Amino acid sequence: MHAHGSTFGHLFRCTTFGESHGGGLGVIIDGCPAGIALDMDAVAHALARRRPGQSRFVSARKELDAVEVLSGLFEGRTLGTPLALVVRNKDADPRAYRPFADRYRPSHADLTYDAKHGFRTWQGGGRASARETVARVAAGAVAEQVLAELAAIEVVAWVERLGGVGGAVDSATVTRAQVDADPLRCPDSAASARMVEVLTAARRDGDTLGGVVRCVLRGVPQGLGEPVFGKLEAALGAAMLSIPAAKGFESGSGFGGVDLRGRAHNDVFEPDGTGGVRTRSNHSGGIQGGISNGMPIEVSVAFKPVATVFFEQDTVDDQGRAATVQPKGRHDPCVVPRAVPIVEAMAALVVLDAMLQQRARAGIGTTPQLGVWPWADRPPRD
Amino acid sequence: MHAHGSTFGHLFRCTTFGESHGGGLGVIIDGCPAGIALDMDAVAHALARRRPGQSRFVSARKELDAVEVLSGLFEGRTLGTPLALVVRNKDADPRAYRPFADRYRPSHADLTYDAKHGFRTWQGGGRASARETVARVAAGAVAEQVLAELAAIEVVAWVERLGGVGGAVDSATVTRAQVDADPLRCPDSAASARMVEVLTAARRDGDTLGGVVRCVLRGVPQGLGEPVFGKLEAALGAAMLSIPAAKGFESGSGFGGVDLRGRAHNDVFEPDGTGGVRTRSNHSGGIQGGISNGMPIEVSVAFKPVATVFFEQDTVDDQGRAATVQPKGRHDPCVVPRAVPIVEAMAALVVLDAMLQQRARAGIGTTPQLGVWPWADRPPRD
Amino acid sequence: MHAHGSTFGHLFRCTTFGESHGGGLGVIIDGCPAGIALDMDAVAHALARRRPGQSRFVSARKELDAVEVLSGLFEGRTLGTPLALVVRNKDADPRAYRPFADRYRPSHADLTYDAKHGFRTWQGGGRASARETVARVAAGAVAEQVLAELAAIEVVAWVERLGGVGGAVDSATVTRAQVDADPLRCPDSAASARMVEVLTAARRDGDTLGGVVRCVLRGVPQGLGEPVFGKLEAALGAAMLSIPAAKGFESGSGFGGVDLRGRAHNDVFEPDGTGGVRTRSNHSGGIQGGISNGMPIEVSVAFKPVATVFFEQDTVDDQGRAATVQPKGRHDPCVVPRAVPIVEAMAALVVLDAMLQQRARAGIGTTPQLGVWPWADRPPRD
Amino acid sequence: MHAHGSTFGHLFRCTTFGESHGGGLGVIIDGCPAGIALDMDAVAHALARRRPGQSRFVSARKELDAVEVLSGLFEGRTLGTPLALVVRNKDADPRAYRPFADRYRPSHADLTYDAKHGFRTWQGGGRASARETVARVAAGAVAEQVLAELAAIEVVAWVERLGGVGGAVDSATVTRAQVDADPLRCPDSAASARMVEVLTAARRDGDTLGGVVRCVLRGVPQGLGEPVFGKLEAALGAAMLSIPAAKGFESGSGFGGVDLRGRAHNDVFEPDGTGGVRTRSNHSGGIQGGISNGMPIEVSVAFKPVATVFFEQDTVDDQGRAATVQPKGRHDPCVVPRAVPIVEAMAALVVLDAMLQQRARAGIGTTPQLGVWPWADRPPRD
Repeated sequence: MHAHGSTFGHLFRCTTFGESHGGGLGVIIDGCPAGIALDMDAVAHALARRRPGQSRFVSARKELDAVEVLSGLFEGRTLGTPLALVVRNKDADPRAYRPFADRYRPSHADLTYDAKHGFRTWQGGGRASARETVARVAAGAVAEQVLAELAAIEVVAWVERLGGVGGAVDSATVTRAQVDADPLRCPDSAASARMVEVLTAARRDGDTLGGVVRCVLRGVPQGLGEPVFGKLEAALGAAMLSIPAAKGFESGSGFGGVDLRGRAHNDVFEPDGTGGVRTRSNHSGGIQGGISNGMPIEVSVAFKPVATVFFEQDTVDDQGRAATVQPKGRHDPCVVPRAVPIVEAMAALVVLDAMLQQRARAGIGTTPQLGVWPWADRPPRD
Repeated sequence: MHAHGSTFGHLFRCTTFGESHGGGLGVIIDGCPAGIALDMDAVAHALARRRPGQSRFVSARKELDAVEVLSGLFEGRTLGTPLALVVRNKDADPRAYRPFADRYRPSHADLTYDAKHGFRTWQGGGRASARETVARVAAGAVAEQVLAELAAIEVVAWVERLGGVGGAVDSATVTRAQVDADPLRCPDSAASARMVEVLTAARRDGDTLGGVVRCVLRGVPQGLGEPVFGKLEAALGAAMLSIPAAKGFESGSGFGGVDLRGRAHNDVFEPDGTGGVRTRSNHSGGIQGGISNGMPIEVSVAFKPVATVFFEQDTVDDQGRAATVQPKGRHDPCVVPRAVPIVEAMAALVVLDAMLQQRARAGIGTTPQLGVWPWADRPPRD
Repeated sequence: MHAHGSTFGHLFRCTTFGESHGGGLGVIIDGCPAGIALDMDAVAHALARRRPGQSRFVSARKELDAVEVLSGLFEGRTLGTPLALVVRNKDADPRAYRPFADRYRPSHADLTYDAKHGFRTWQGGGRASARETVARVAAGAVAEQVLAELAAIEVVAWVERLGGVGGAVDSATVTRAQVDADPLRCPDSAASARMVEVLTAARRDGDTLGGVVRCVLRGVPQGLGEPVFGKLEAALGAAMLSIPAAKGFESGSGFGGVDLRGRAHNDVFEPDGTGGVRTRSNHSGGIQGGISNGMPIEVSVAFKPVATVFFEQDTVDDQGRAATVQPKGRHDPCVVPRAVPIVEAMAALVVLDAMLQQRARAGIGTTPQLGVWPWADRPPRD
Repeated sequence: MHAHGSTFGHLFRCTTFGESHGGGLGVIIDGCPAGIALDMDAVAHALARRRPGQSRFVSARKELDAVEVLSGLFEGRTLGTPLALVVRNKDADPRAYRPFADRYRPSHADLTYDAKHGFRTWQGGGRASARETVARVAAGAVAEQVLAELAAIEVVAWVERLGGVGGAVDSATVTRAQVDADPLRCPDSAASARMVEVLTAARRDGDTLGGVVRCVLRGVPQGLGEPVFGKLEAALGAAMLSIPAAKGFESGSGFGGVDLRGRAHNDVFEPDGTGGVRTRSNHSGGIQGGISNGMPIEVSVAFKPVATVFFEQDTVDDQGRAATVQPKGRHDPCVVPRAVPIVEAMAALVVLDAMLQQRARAGIGTTPQLGVWPWADRPPRD
């Protein structure tokens, strides 16, 4: 984390900008290595996955989210200089927010932004709007292309729980195609069907739902993450908890694991048959002592229900006096399915940054090269 | 988070060092304001709260953890220059770890540190040992004294759950004295009694337990936290998830809140009768849009069961070959009670840093002074 | 300095992007306080001062450098969120650079960017072009408006030396208006006339000149700058030495002062008659021990002669083989007059950042409020 | 530079602490790669080179500067964890400073530290004392050992000018042994003899001298340094200008080069006969566009005369009233020879950090491996 909140990462460093109803938003990526043939269609596809306006379950706002590259790209290849990606706000319609100009919507950031700045745009959530995540997803899509140069890493997230309904998904095999094939991005079709029911009911009632996104990263090499404050859980946790509406984060066994005894929770090691090591169970979620152990990394993110509900609610106005609000506007009854590509983007950004940090010292002294087990260079013992 | 893992914070910046069995460990605090009469007894008291060797439930290692101040203090007052606090390792007894010198203990950081560095100390956990947290607690105790100059903030943590037993504690009123009066730091005495039972049983079996620490921060002014990546949940989450054995973090309603509908989850605002604003419920845990709203901040941290269990376990050696380990040494059957002051320390460090960041801009443009609601300076309407 | 090169500052944090011939360039300013009525005409005026195409002494490239604000501004006031300022490249004409696509211009960054990235744009200097400084000047113009909220600080730079001709300027009184009234920004008209002669001669010969810009900051409060590595000279030096073509930096008496004896060089203190303190001389250039002492800060920056000379020169091609280049294109015979607003911009950015850092702790413990001498709050002695 | 002043570097990150008369001082190095057999004798030798008390030309203070390693080292090898190096203050004798407890010595940091903090130690310079550089030299000695693992880099500094006397030294061949063989570290014996004369005279008069240290780095690979704000000149400049008493910095031709025309100043390229490229002249000082070009890097640092002169001087007291001071204590009549190892240390720290940053991306996309010219991997053109 940096002194201000709009920069993320160190060696693959993203600085984002933009409000929901200003001229546009985007990201400056500093530290993207040079000479990578950037697939802008893949970036567009990633943005399409988070875009509103695609079904009755998400906001009706129409944004094509076309990405303009202002710098850092030449003849289709990255220059190594800052990559500037800009997305215009096209369908910004602030009129629906006019009634809230002088009052704070409950459980939004209206009050807290005013408390922080003494000033706010009344045009929707402004910087606190989830529209900000366009920049994250664009950056994540670039990060995935850089990651592909380094290792065969798969990052897949899905809806694990929605409106009180839990799904059962095999994290070892689930693919993005399976996830995207489901309207709610829960690739357990029976659970998804029940989720559609509760979501439909909530929507009809003018109410909203929350849920949990789980994410697996397969193929992450061992040795990533920085001891003490830079543990991989801390980095992933900060990344995920910075997503709008996130209120919880788990790694591996998480909150459920605390009820196990140590013997049952421990992940014993065994040779993997190819010169490496694996663990028999994965309660650690691929991270031990804050550092990746080569097993799949698994994390969950809890998203609270959307705060915009279509009821009259008590509140205060911007003079601190009692008032009421009756929200209108275009809103998702549930953001959880749209959070899936955002979680994936943040995961990719964290892992790429950790990988670049480890590359900086790999091969010096006894530090192994990325993805190589330390015993590869060790004289055998009798 | 910084490029390496041993520095925490920006304007109150802590750099820690030390392994469990080296010469010592400590913290350099850069950015501590000058002229503060530092109460070193309070620092010693904080360290005593995390110290091992106090009861049958915690490690038998004896460390007085006397703090030496190498710099930054003059005639009892802080100089504004880096405060260097050093604690010697006295009772380091690495012999018990000799048998593990060539093999990795399951669910410890032995394998991952070797994977990262190609080298490790076999003397206990080294940098990954929970002994590292001495430095955090010392820094936190200084942070609390600086915080006391700025606002009347109370930071209180307690054991909310241990070995599958949950306690019920009133976060609005609980005090440190109440917490410390309980042997397991769970100020629900009925629950604590059951926790003692399950812990005694686990210890007898050579097994270990995990649990959950909850922490409340009362009196934190509104407006703290940085939008987007520097949200207060992200900063607190990174802080807590960097504590050894932490596997989960929640803010406010957390994972439980995802099953509520939005209308039930929303925290409606109302005047607090003194010119300020409060919320009727506090599912937000005092943070909205990543920024404090003046209500108590509440977070939970999940700690996995201790990895050192006194059974023979399968593992691999440092050549990647199948092996077994049978741990010995001095270990806690449960770290959760000792994690309480560590959680408080990290909370204090995060809030102080956020407060200093907000002070930097307070009073410029429309930015309110710390703790002042924005309408205090606003011309009345109609 | 940050892990990558395109971010400057901590609490007023600027991230720039853009190449000389890409789609555009700009700056994201994170940390600009909210509610400031931003004068965009002042930003435009600042950019006009560095703009090429204004006289026979500067590049013929025509760029209106109109600034678009993509975020961070609402109804004319800053939001406290990232301010995104973008300037399009309009008159980009890369054809003139085609002949150099496969070879390196001497004393440019062509070779070193290729050595760093293995890839470069052949369209002019790319990221290394002085066109990059558009973003610095825009950011500096915003910084000056924030500074104006904090103190009455004047930042004035001028050409002190050009093509071997030195000017004599009174740093205590010189104004921007005086500087801008001179075609070469040297407000010593006799010296300026001689500079015009040598510059005209150099231009006629297809050759180029270098020079020195001196900058004074009047009204900077005492107490700014961070001890040890964050000394104000270090921060100003890094800022100035990052400007294209800068090869030297001095503070106060600089290189000339090293020949004085200590007694002659020392700046003795005396009461200033208004409760403050001044020094009788100012060899320190307003900075002692790396911290401002309230006297005018004075620094100089050395700029090498422009590397683009219109002669055939030996070089190598991008296969490392001997070759020649004969530059064409649009270039300044001397950048020094155009460097004046860039030096001012960097100075403003450094001082604002230092001021925000000091504000963060001002009033805590014994730390004085900004601009208040410490004895104001001190009990009188004897 | 970081938000506070006591941390330097990113991937080889040094945090220093300590005042001249407190318990001790030292450095925490985070990011030192693991498994390096650290030669502590070399560290001790480096500290001996900056130590006072060695001749009549330097302070009579006796400090053995024995280094204690508190963490990061195990069985003689670095662990990859923070290396904590501590040096005790032994011969601290603050009594001589008692008379200045209530007044500010001219051109010292006494006033500015008080202005910043409202508090200071009257025991000598405190944090502003040049004794702080012990930590820099210790860190630099470690950095040189890490650098030795990466490339054959030689860092040699010497006194180029002292008390108005300039020396002539061949930067292509000068060695540390030659430098250290001279009592004033000016390996031009005729010049050194004259320097001894002026220094003896100044000392006899109770006065002091300044001078210039020049430093060459031979063997630095091409491609180091970060574009725009992280240029190698900016990083080196910040490093050098942070040394106590430094008031100027030059790279390559520096201030002298500004009087040359571009044609004469340009460094034309030619094949070096071994597949690489060199420049015929080196006005660029090994850096072009802020990035190393493989030629020797050359910089100069200007040091003002020592501020402690043994005359009565006017000043003010800590209530802002007119007063006088008559310094006593132990002081160097000239710090320039002792600055030589400090300049070398800072140079090593900058280059190592730049090298680690470049390693992070080396081999990705088109980025060349460290020290490999980009055409090595380029398909030949006809």
